[in-house]
Amino acid sequence: MNKKVNLKEKLTLFNEYWSPRIIGRLNGQMVKLAKLKGEFVWHSHEQEDELFYVLKGQLKMELRDRTEILNEGDMFIVQRGLEHRPVAEEEVHIMLFEPDTTVNTGAVINELTVDAKEME
Amino acid sequence: MNKKVNLKEKLTLFNEYWSPRIIGRLNGQMVKLAKLKGEFVWHSHEQEDELFYVLKGQLKMELRDRTEILNEGDMFIVQRGLEHRPVAEEEVHIMLFEPDTTVNTGAVINELTVDAKEME
Repeated sequence: MNKKVNLKEKLTLFNEYWSPRIIGRLNGQMVKLAKLKGEFVWHSHEQEDELFYVLKGQLKMELRDRTEILNEGDMFIVQRGLEHRPVAEEEVHIMLFEPDTTVNTGAVINELTVDAKEME
Repeated sequence: MNKKVNLKEKLTLFNEYWSPRIIGRLNGQMVKLAKLKGEFVWHSHEQEDELFYVLKGQLKMELRDRTEILNEGDMFIVQRGLEHRPVAEEEVHIMLFEPDTTVNTGAVINELTVDAKEME
């Protein structure tokens, strides 16, 4: 991991939606990239806070009491326990920062549940 | 912390170099913004891995065995114990991820040592 990583370059190497790629590890946390399109599932992470940083596009972060509209350059931290549903009407690219233990669908296990894949 | 943060907007709110601002906290880690210009001090963090993500400009990350040239969109993780010296010939804007316990100058305490400041 002791070399630089260019995020745009890494984003050219995969196209699957809702399938996070691990691009770095530090302090028990993982840095991930993901491409999103469509509606995800409502879920929460009981033990993990999760950071979303929008690299491209617009992400609607639905919360039970409101929706946060996140554009390029916006960051949002979903605190542990908070129910959320990411929605991307058009393709969105994000960076994620979250603990090693994080499951993408949180306490919900369904067809969207995937293991994050390591990138070279 | 439960609201979105626009990084470019936050960067308009301060001008001091080498004076990190805290823009988020999660999982015992802090997300910071900093503006850099000039040469920092050689240092290492004994217990903390530190992530640099370049938002604007070019950062030279000097290591004892080489120099990594980091441009906009590049990320670099400095593993704990690794001596490094950030050098910015022109102004550079970065995002940092590191544990709450991180001191900016690591084990070196000198006139560059500062506490990160909280941003609203």
